[in-house]
Amino acid sequence: MAALAEANSGQAQPYGADELTQKARAALAELFEHEVWVFPVSTGTAANALASSVMTPPYGAIFASQTAHIDTSECGAAEFYTGGAKIVLVQTDRGRILPDALSEALGKAGKGLAHRVQPAGLNITQASERGTVYSLNHLEQLTEIGKRHGLKIHMDGARFANAVAKLNCKPAETTWRIGVDVLSFGLTKNGAMGVEAVICFRQDLAEELRYRQRRAGQVYSKMRFASAQLLAYVKDGLWLRNAANANAMGLRLGQGLSHVPGVRLEEPIEINQVFLTMPEPVIAGMEKAGIGLGRRGDGHVRMVAAWSSTEAEIDRAIQAARAAAKGKAAA
Amino acid sequence: MAALAEANSGQAQPYGADELTQKARAALAELFEHEVWVFPVSTGTAANALASSVMTPPYGAIFASQTAHIDTSECGAAEFYTGGAKIVLVQTDRGRILPDALSEALGKAGKGLAHRVQPAGLNITQASERGTVYSLNHLEQLTEIGKRHGLKIHMDGARFANAVAKLNCKPAETTWRIGVDVLSFGLTKNGAMGVEAVICFRQDLAEELRYRQRRAGQVYSKMRFASAQLLAYVKDGLWLRNAANANAMGLRLGQGLSHVPGVRLEEPIEINQVFLTMPEPVIAGMEKAGIGLGRRGDGHVRMVAAWSSTEAEIDRAIQAARAAAKGKAAA
Amino acid sequence: MAALAEANSGQAQPYGADELTQKARAALAELFEHEVWVFPVSTGTAANALASSVMTPPYGAIFASQTAHIDTSECGAAEFYTGGAKIVLVQTDRGRILPDALSEALGKAGKGLAHRVQPAGLNITQASERGTVYSLNHLEQLTEIGKRHGLKIHMDGARFANAVAKLNCKPAETTWRIGVDVLSFGLTKNGAMGVEAVICFRQDLAEELRYRQRRAGQVYSKMRFASAQLLAYVKDGLWLRNAANANAMGLRLGQGLSHVPGVRLEEPIEINQVFLTMPEPVIAGMEKAGIGLGRRGDGHVRMVAAWSSTEAEIDRAIQAARAAAKGKAAA
Amino acid sequence: MAALAEANSGQAQPYGADELTQKARAALAELFEHEVWVFPVSTGTAANALASSVMTPPYGAIFASQTAHIDTSECGAAEFYTGGAKIVLVQTDRGRILPDALSEALGKAGKGLAHRVQPAGLNITQASERGTVYSLNHLEQLTEIGKRHGLKIHMDGARFANAVAKLNCKPAETTWRIGVDVLSFGLTKNGAMGVEAVICFRQDLAEELRYRQRRAGQVYSKMRFASAQLLAYVKDGLWLRNAANANAMGLRLGQGLSHVPGVRLEEPIEINQVFLTMPEPVIAGMEKAGIGLGRRGDGHVRMVAAWSSTEAEIDRAIQAARAAAKGKAAA
Repeated sequence: MAALAEANSGQAQPYGADELTQKARAALAELFEHEVWVFPVSTGTAANALASSVMTPPYGAIFASQTAHIDTSECGAAEFYTGGAKIVLVQTDRGRILPDALSEALGKAGKGLAHRVQPAGLNITQASERGTVYSLNHLEQLTEIGKRHGLKIHMDGARFANAVAKLNCKPAETTWRIGVDVLSFGLTKNGAMGVEAVICFRQDLAEELRYRQRRAGQVYSKMRFASAQLLAYVKDGLWLRNAANANAMGLRLGQGLSHVPGVRLEEPIEINQVFLTMPEPVIAGMEKAGIGLGRRGDGHVRMVAAWSSTEAEIDRAIQAARAAAKGKAAA
Repeated sequence: MAALAEANSGQAQPYGADELTQKARAALAELFEHEVWVFPVSTGTAANALASSVMTPPYGAIFASQTAHIDTSECGAAEFYTGGAKIVLVQTDRGRILPDALSEALGKAGKGLAHRVQPAGLNITQASERGTVYSLNHLEQLTEIGKRHGLKIHMDGARFANAVAKLNCKPAETTWRIGVDVLSFGLTKNGAMGVEAVICFRQDLAEELRYRQRRAGQVYSKMRFASAQLLAYVKDGLWLRNAANANAMGLRLGQGLSHVPGVRLEEPIEINQVFLTMPEPVIAGMEKAGIGLGRRGDGHVRMVAAWSSTEAEIDRAIQAARAAAKGKAAA
Repeated sequence: MAALAEANSGQAQPYGADELTQKARAALAELFEHEVWVFPVSTGTAANALASSVMTPPYGAIFASQTAHIDTSECGAAEFYTGGAKIVLVQTDRGRILPDALSEALGKAGKGLAHRVQPAGLNITQASERGTVYSLNHLEQLTEIGKRHGLKIHMDGARFANAVAKLNCKPAETTWRIGVDVLSFGLTKNGAMGVEAVICFRQDLAEELRYRQRRAGQVYSKMRFASAQLLAYVKDGLWLRNAANANAMGLRLGQGLSHVPGVRLEEPIEINQVFLTMPEPVIAGMEKAGIGLGRRGDGHVRMVAAWSSTEAEIDRAIQAARAAAKGKAAA
Repeated sequence: MAALAEANSGQAQPYGADELTQKARAALAELFEHEVWVFPVSTGTAANALASSVMTPPYGAIFASQTAHIDTSECGAAEFYTGGAKIVLVQTDRGRILPDALSEALGKAGKGLAHRVQPAGLNITQASERGTVYSLNHLEQLTEIGKRHGLKIHMDGARFANAVAKLNCKPAETTWRIGVDVLSFGLTKNGAMGVEAVICFRQDLAEELRYRQRRAGQVYSKMRFASAQLLAYVKDGLWLRNAANANAMGLRLGQGLSHVPGVRLEEPIEINQVFLTMPEPVIAGMEKAGIGLGRRGDGHVRMVAAWSSTEAEIDRAIQAARAAAKGKAAA
């Protein structure tokens, strides 16, 4: 907010020519230790779809996990932006693509056969939609296979900060150094007001992204407001502090809930997402107590600790679950 | 051929206004016992993709079998023609969609949720890509589920003739009477020179097909040549005689080969397609003998009896396999 | 800014379910005296392209002025969102479509002929790209012709506020009452930080817009920030006060500059846009003085008074032009 | 027909692997004195749209004449196949793009500006839609301008044979030697039964065309029938003899009609197309006599001499016009 208020005072050149935008780009280049081309957009879906659009021709295929957000939750945005490319799902374990399965899928993909869509892109979500984090070694296996088959590589980093915080690695290590061409750099889930960024590590793709971004109606005229958020986000490590807190709170939440009778953790907790199975009364009791949770049917629940969550808030949620489990909620 | 030569003599109005085209439409209406709108196209892929384009909006989903030709073998034509709709694969047994699996898939599809592609179409291949034929009862279960969820229904009938011959039913019984809206009516695999037809049973969809066909570059200027083939194809039941012969020859082929040592039928034979597993020497021996077969890797083979195959040709193929199995081929 | 800060405190439901979003919708319904469906997006291009996507099938045509923003300045976004519809340009006078020319273009459009793209939508920019405002009577002529030919009608209102302020009419009079189906409601050029809205007056189109907006990556997860801007914008008539000031300042600027030697007004001034021809030294002198102007080649210049411009700022710009004209700028 | 009958006897490999297809490609390479990649398709619209699809990215523009078939008569096929590129019309004289106008249009196109569609392709129809033929010098001017601006060049040769016959030049001189990358090679209007071909002179574009052709449903499974037509068409100069006859008959027709009272030639006659203005009674009289002509409103008429027209047929048409003009038709 403070960054926005500052951006609001004074005047500026429209469409990204302002000083803040230059600063944001420089800050990201420093952060990633690589030249970057930065394309701020309004949503994570836009970031993923724009990135996808430079991964593949319309007659190509993007390989992705069985839980990939671009497949399940973006209303076909990737198909729209790519002009009708196909998303091919690869066998996945807890949100992470299995390297052998990727090899097998590529082996059967029919490269060079005109009646088959042609392998073109690889989509990796880091951290994954199941709250897991790829190890650097796991990532390298995937990108190595992808590159060997000529795929461009897109990392969906809606929760990139949480992954980097968890791995305690440099951003470069989990992106361009292992072959990532384009990154969806998520901000909104980690504290920003409503901006995401496509970060591109290759000039040829960046050139194309310029036009595709505009054509998609994703070039802010008052770019400085987006840039101000980007700049504030990475300055002084704010993004990693936010993510580290969210991760810690996720762990606290998951561990706390796992001791509530009838509640079961579905996945080990690696970031701020917690996947649980709960008895209906516990779910209902928490909802009644005003605790936000995502019902996924049949007692499956997803909870997410925020970058701003406090221990007290988390403990209150756990307490609500305990109370509901004891049947006190109805009292 | 004779039909074409006749069409070639004399002159005619371009773009479908000629008499032959009117006759072909009338003949098909009589055959299907329903008003039809007929759109001749050059390939089966074009027929399927055109039909798909009126099944779904770009933000929709077409439900199809795990072996659906539109998914595996048309280089993304359905995605192209629909403007990027998604093909959702439903659990399949021997090429046929399982009704329960369809219900379940539709139940989880997220109708009304904006982040999900919206259920719009159902694609049924009759006969299936695995050489099986849906029973009328099985079909009705699928179309009833589809209609209940508001799906439009497209039948991919690249081998429609073989299915009708096998079921010994009326064309109406396996199409519009059970809710099929649009049919890809295959001719080429059953004797025509190179024409397929989209047959539409609904005027609203037909209106849209007119423009989409032209826009796809699929409206023949010399339509009479396509119409001549269509007319000759259905006249006097030629199409069903061709298909019945192909089915009989397929059965003869499959049964004959199944007794060759090391050869195993993968599917029961219902039409003219035969799926087999064979030892490599048998495959090689048959190829050497000039027998056409489609290798599918690891000893899997697909063979197809033609509408024009004779018992002698079939027996020669079986003989070649036997000889190869005995190691004589190399002699 | 104040509205944003307020939105920032507290928590809220994501994706538009929050209270602010409901309030914004209600406020707009009241303002337009009609039920409305509101789709906040990040840019004017997105608003126009989304609106265009429900005007026409892919094989349709949108009729627009020769200066239409959707044709000249959006990198083909309308073609992208519509799946490849065609924009047909109609003869235009000072940015406004001539009714007779529209009738003629529609008469020659080939409705019902399959080799022609089919007339589907009408795009009207109010105020126009040349800074002119359609009279209500002029608008009605256009929409009446459009409706008679079955066109859906989209108003590009990037400068809608300036037009309403100029006409001193009710928003309803220049939109749904005369047949406008969908409006791009511009905020950013009139004071907001970076939000535009598609305002839809028809439920059937709104239903489709929901999915297309998401598919385009234009659904903010933290919708409350967009809604807060919308709400603040229309509350207590702020939007019209801003526009009235911009218009007044535009008039002051144009009149002042028109007396500078060598400077010529290209269009009568109706809103806050001023189109001028200037000698190069005057242009250069103003630029040197830090006055923002848009060069359009060969001495053509566009200047825009802001919603926040003051008389002192305007007079400073005029003074700079005068000084440059007298050759003092170089001194 | 004879070529088809021959192709019909015997069996062949599907999808273009047969001997006839190889022969056709070799014959075309010899004809064009250049390596060629040949893609037979079913219609001229398909040929043009396929070719267009490798001229431009979706955010690009194809420059074309004001009478270009891809703009006026293909229901938006170019927009469909390109994924929504824009066709920019350039000032045209009698069907031919004016070089100066092309230069000017490209100069104003905004290359490098993200809000503008990017210049990508040039579409030249030879012979033009107005029956005129570009001189080699005129063509070279256009292609030189196009290449200087980085455009790929597509020649729409629906009447290519007529142009080559008129110019009495080698096919190479009017195609790749002056920079044409892809040619729509028209056969149907010049005697074939229903096949057109995209002829590509560049391997990189050919690679992409393979997939786009399949994705468009334009790959014949029984390719030999298309190839047989192609081969017969170019063998022994049949295509040029057909065209020369059509051109001569067009000239005879136009000259004859131009002496009929009230009839006026609109364009000098260069190939087999004749554009005329006629009194309504003459038009009606000719129609009554069974003479095919294309009404274009207000007395404008297009007539086309066929490759198979005879002097007697032409003279009969002229006679019918004369009779009608004398008022005998009604007698």
